[in-house]
Amino acid sequence: MPHDIHIVTEAELRDIVTLDLALVDVIERAFAALSEGGVVMPPVLSMDLPQANGEVDVKTAFIPGVESFAIKVSPGFFDNPKIGLPSLNGLMILFSAKTGLVEAVFLDNGYLTDLRTAAAGAVAARQLAPAQVETAGVIGAGVQARLQIEAAHLVRPFSRVLVHARDAEKARACAADLGQRLGVEAEAVADPAALVAKSQLVVTTTPAREPVLMADWLHPGLHITAMGSDQEGKCEIEPAALSRADVYVCDRGSQCAERGELRAALAAGLWDRGTPPELGDVILGRATGRQSESDVTICDLTGTGVQDTAIAAHVRARFPGAGTVIRA
Amino acid sequence: MPHDIHIVTEAELRDIVTLDLALVDVIERAFAALSEGGVVMPPVLSMDLPQANGEVDVKTAFIPGVESFAIKVSPGFFDNPKIGLPSLNGLMILFSAKTGLVEAVFLDNGYLTDLRTAAAGAVAARQLAPAQVETAGVIGAGVQARLQIEAAHLVRPFSRVLVHARDAEKARACAADLGQRLGVEAEAVADPAALVAKSQLVVTTTPAREPVLMADWLHPGLHITAMGSDQEGKCEIEPAALSRADVYVCDRGSQCAERGELRAALAAGLWDRGTPPELGDVILGRATGRQSESDVTICDLTGTGVQDTAIAAHVRARFPGAGTVIRA
Repeated sequence: MPHDIHIVTEAELRDIVTLDLALVDVIERAFAALSEGGVVMPPVLSMDLPQANGEVDVKTAFIPGVESFAIKVSPGFFDNPKIGLPSLNGLMILFSAKTGLVEAVFLDNGYLTDLRTAAAGAVAARQLAPAQVETAGVIGAGVQARLQIEAAHLVRPFSRVLVHARDAEKARACAADLGQRLGVEAEAVADPAALVAKSQLVVTTTPAREPVLMADWLHPGLHITAMGSDQEGKCEIEPAALSRADVYVCDRGSQCAERGELRAALAAGLWDRGTPPELGDVILGRATGRQSESDVTICDLTGTGVQDTAIAAHVRARFPGAGTVIRA
Repeated sequence: MPHDIHIVTEAELRDIVTLDLALVDVIERAFAALSEGGVVMPPVLSMDLPQANGEVDVKTAFIPGVESFAIKVSPGFFDNPKIGLPSLNGLMILFSAKTGLVEAVFLDNGYLTDLRTAAAGAVAARQLAPAQVETAGVIGAGVQARLQIEAAHLVRPFSRVLVHARDAEKARACAADLGQRLGVEAEAVADPAALVAKSQLVVTTTPAREPVLMADWLHPGLHITAMGSDQEGKCEIEPAALSRADVYVCDRGSQCAERGELRAALAAGLWDRGTPPELGDVILGRATGRQSESDVTICDLTGTGVQDTAIAAHVRARFPGAGTVIRA
């Protein structure tokens, strides 16, 4: 029985969906739902394709009360830049949570993933960063470096941003972009330790496999969001830092133990506080977050299917007529 | 960087893709590739949605040498018939095996799955059934009952078909359809034991959770293809039959042990022949298939990602201009 399916392109999505507080609220509610129970979120389906220097991840989640659920496919093919294509692509498919019929296909090439990932950073900052943030720092200078800082600024309107990246030129370009976009003082910083020392909020956005932020750099009143480790083998934060922080929070405990910062800490025997709290537990008040301005907090984000379902359902609800309608 | 993506509907697919020997050959090569090695086929991602009386399966496979790979999403929402919708739906997405870019979205509502499932039945019959089949029988009277018999007829042009189903009226309708379509004698049969006794080739196509074909019914020169058990808990063939057959073959051993006929046989302690051969092993001559006309053979089909990739890549290669082109 043919029904209408909306096919929405990246360009169309960029026109209508942006990073704003409404989206941050949507993602915050998704994390709360994940901790409340009733969410069905299978482990990530991961396919390594060494012959193609690629990998494919499939994420999904069913959230009770949300009218649709998304299945997201994220291919990463790392030889693409050699032929002028981005490494990361993909799409999201939205299904009715009542009938399983396809409602929409978002041919977003990863744009909605970028947004929902940045929005999770804003949720982490809102829940865990000190109330007053004057300086925010970011390690990394790519798309997520920009989006994470923009997201953090929505909830902690700092007046200065510092950027460190291995490539100093990219760091300068990123700082210039952010300064202009947010209207704040912006500076590229050669020494990541100095960046952390001067910041109350730091986001790590690298694909690092060795720590880029050391445990000795932690200081009172620091919040860190580590969002780069989303695959086994990645590691941005020195493992000893997790137990040294007053509060360490996962987006999803089981995922962080497999592919987040927690993985390396567990492997090194440097995590001994049992099951860490999840971001949703903090949102719901079921776990203790920051208790004083001097606490050190770390949030480990690996990226979850609830974020995908939440953003896709949000786009569908706010822009029901978007895209090209195909009857199939 | 926007690129062309073909959106192809079920109606468009029905116009261009049918069950024929070319498709059977494509599916046979896919099974051979699976046994040759180099295929990357993760376990099925399964999501049970008891709140919606639904389930969702995601299957995929990367086949070396095939230019694209598919990811297939199959939702089954079993309250749909109450509101006039089919239970099974879904789509396939085809990605470039070189870049990971989306090439096509087949909004097939399960049509390509129906075809590749039937084609696997033809492969099983071609590899394992006796050379001479005069009578084919089918237990079940749904879409797959029709397609499996049509597929078997491509490789074993029998002159009579027998149909058994719990609902005698549906069995009669199915027999009438098949008789007309294939130009063979066709009869609905009330007693499944009699159906098996008279047939050289039997296909079971039911969602049964208790056996519908008993071990005592096996007779010299019988081939059985069991394709209904594709989820844990399903069972069509009495477990003792597997070891009593001369040859028992899986489409994929690990999947059959979890969700095929093999699962119940293992659970009952009735399988003691170690790792069973796979269909691809038989195709490649690495495992022994039927050795005499009097052998009893059973093939257990659970449905694999290589079939999805094979049919989707086949459609793309044969009909590169199909569907609506969306630039995204």
